[in-house]
Amino acid sequence: MQIVRPTLLLNETICRRNIRRMATKAAEQSLRFRPHFKTHQSHTVGRWFRDEGVSAITVSSVAMAAYFAADGWTDITVAFPLNPHEHETINQLASRIRLSVTVVNLEALQQLVPQLLHPLHIFIELDTGYHRTGIAPADGAALERILTFVEAQPLLSFAGFLSHAGHSYASRSWSQIEAIHQESMRLATEVGRRYRDRYPSHVVSVGDTPTCSVARDFRGADEIRPGNFVFYDLTQCAIGSCTEADVAVALACPVVALYPERKEVVVHGGAVHCSKDALQENEVRHYGKVARLTEAGWGSSLPDTYIKSLSQEHGIIHTPRPETFRIGETVAIMPVHSCLMADAMKQYQLVASGHTVTMMQ
Amino acid sequence: MQIVRPTLLLNETICRRNIRRMATKAAEQSLRFRPHFKTHQSHTVGRWFRDEGVSAITVSSVAMAAYFAADGWTDITVAFPLNPHEHETINQLASRIRLSVTVVNLEALQQLVPQLLHPLHIFIELDTGYHRTGIAPADGAALERILTFVEAQPLLSFAGFLSHAGHSYASRSWSQIEAIHQESMRLATEVGRRYRDRYPSHVVSVGDTPTCSVARDFRGADEIRPGNFVFYDLTQCAIGSCTEADVAVALACPVVALYPERKEVVVHGGAVHCSKDALQENEVRHYGKVARLTEAGWGSSLPDTYIKSLSQEHGIIHTPRPETFRIGETVAIMPVHSCLMADAMKQYQLVASGHTVTMMQ
Repeated sequence: MQIVRPTLLLNETICRRNIRRMATKAAEQSLRFRPHFKTHQSHTVGRWFRDEGVSAITVSSVAMAAYFAADGWTDITVAFPLNPHEHETINQLASRIRLSVTVVNLEALQQLVPQLLHPLHIFIELDTGYHRTGIAPADGAALERILTFVEAQPLLSFAGFLSHAGHSYASRSWSQIEAIHQESMRLATEVGRRYRDRYPSHVVSVGDTPTCSVARDFRGADEIRPGNFVFYDLTQCAIGSCTEADVAVALACPVVALYPERKEVVVHGGAVHCSKDALQENEVRHYGKVARLTEAGWGSSLPDTYIKSLSQEHGIIHTPRPETFRIGETVAIMPVHSCLMADAMKQYQLVASGHTVTMMQ
Repeated sequence: MQIVRPTLLLNETICRRNIRRMATKAAEQSLRFRPHFKTHQSHTVGRWFRDEGVSAITVSSVAMAAYFAADGWTDITVAFPLNPHEHETINQLASRIRLSVTVVNLEALQQLVPQLLHPLHIFIELDTGYHRTGIAPADGAALERILTFVEAQPLLSFAGFLSHAGHSYASRSWSQIEAIHQESMRLATEVGRRYRDRYPSHVVSVGDTPTCSVARDFRGADEIRPGNFVFYDLTQCAIGSCTEADVAVALACPVVALYPERKEVVVHGGAVHCSKDALQENEVRHYGKVARLTEAGWGSSLPDTYIKSLSQEHGIIHTPRPETFRIGETVAIMPVHSCLMADAMKQYQLVASGHTVTMMQ
């Protein structure tokens, strides 16, 4: 594998194992598996999910829904608050696939409806503790306003309630993840039960990578929507969702300078490749850990060796053993946040074949 | 101007004014103006520099050199440590333009030379206090090893010394910038003087946006290479390099949710659009400030109104006046770091004409 410049490596074996494990868990729990495709943003990786029987997906933008619809996906939920200005693409998609959108207020829906030409399925997002978006489960009046509006519109149909326990990312142990999961599930499923008689076929959709990786009890939910697990990353390792052996992507970076007296090594691989997402671990705040390239991809992270700072194109590695690096060699940077690294890189190189896999541009 | 989804706005008037001001300053100081093009990464914006008489440029990667060579630039310095694996593109470029590369160690050059087919100009980077890359000015032995090697290679010629006082970014006043500038200039020009007799035509090349915006005395330097000033950003405002009125780009974002009780507004505009670069100002750490769209582009930043957190696609605005925002309206996010926002967005929309300007992909 000849690497000239920063290249995002993807280990298909690890990635397919991550997909299969989550698909199996969903099946065992009788949950529909509607994976979030925002992490990989790739037709090719999407097909690996199809190989595991997945037929319904989640995306984070209407543009991403269009990208995956173009590869034959016919049941797509946009898990981002409805933006009525997207009506053109929404109409194009809703005319040919089952498109669900996420609503967090009545106003956006009211603005969309006069432009709407095709059937649209409506999820209402519940805020189960993350406090990013969504309606408070206790705010029955707000829920009722949206449901009444949806019922009155012939092109709209209520699909269910959706929640995202994104505050699980602050966890640093399984017990913390479990506690967040249980409270979030309690809030979402209570609302689900409240409306079960009125909407017998509505869905309670939950999911984020930490809780879907760790929690065991999803009773009351109908589907899960984890996304990051497809690649995992060092943040998920720190949370406890996975181990380093589950991380399916890494950035191959040429070594361009050595500063042994500062215990630093400089690679071509900067903020435009890694993103500036950082991870605080003990006393260290870093932008990625460093591993050696191997025949099969890359090895375990080297002890106390991490990206201490990033410029646009420079990555500065701190290492206690700078003498083990050489100018011209290539090392792997394991991502702090694989979603952002993938989005920054826009394509993958498969470690087994060297083939390039494209992404949404 | 109808904005559907996150869109990077570029105000050509402000941008051309920034370019002209810096070109004028360079001319007044008898400095060659070799602007760094890593911030805008665009043929169109590059041509605005040409309109000001610029004929030589700086880039941060060999790939970026190829992108600008394709638009007719014939004198390009790659201000990033030489990566010998780039020999193919280096040869392609060196066969038809004056290509200069930056060397921070002998090893990379030794690895490149057996592959080299065309004349290549060599800058040696001096570390004048930033401690990212470069050779210590006092390390005469290291400089001599490289110079001796260059002299012995028929295809190599020594172009000069290059420094980047990137530690000026930690400044928060003109006097701090001046102090860094003077020390960095002293170190770089001392080395320049030491080798003036041996290499009468060699160049001392300096520059970063804070020092080039603020400092007045560049005696001993031959050229400047600022980049970010083409757009500026909130970090440069905080440093003191510019005012908000000089910031030439902003991200137009649709408002999708309002949480007045939390004093928060949610926009479509997240980490994949803004980057995760943050700015600490007083007690607040933020990812951008918020302004209203206007006929001419956008206005001043709203008081105490800023991006407090970013998910992949969500931007969470804190504002003391959430009641002044509406679902479906579009607001402007002024960038913390315009280089990373531009790199994330990959194209601009000109505010005057609505035309789209492409970037290097």
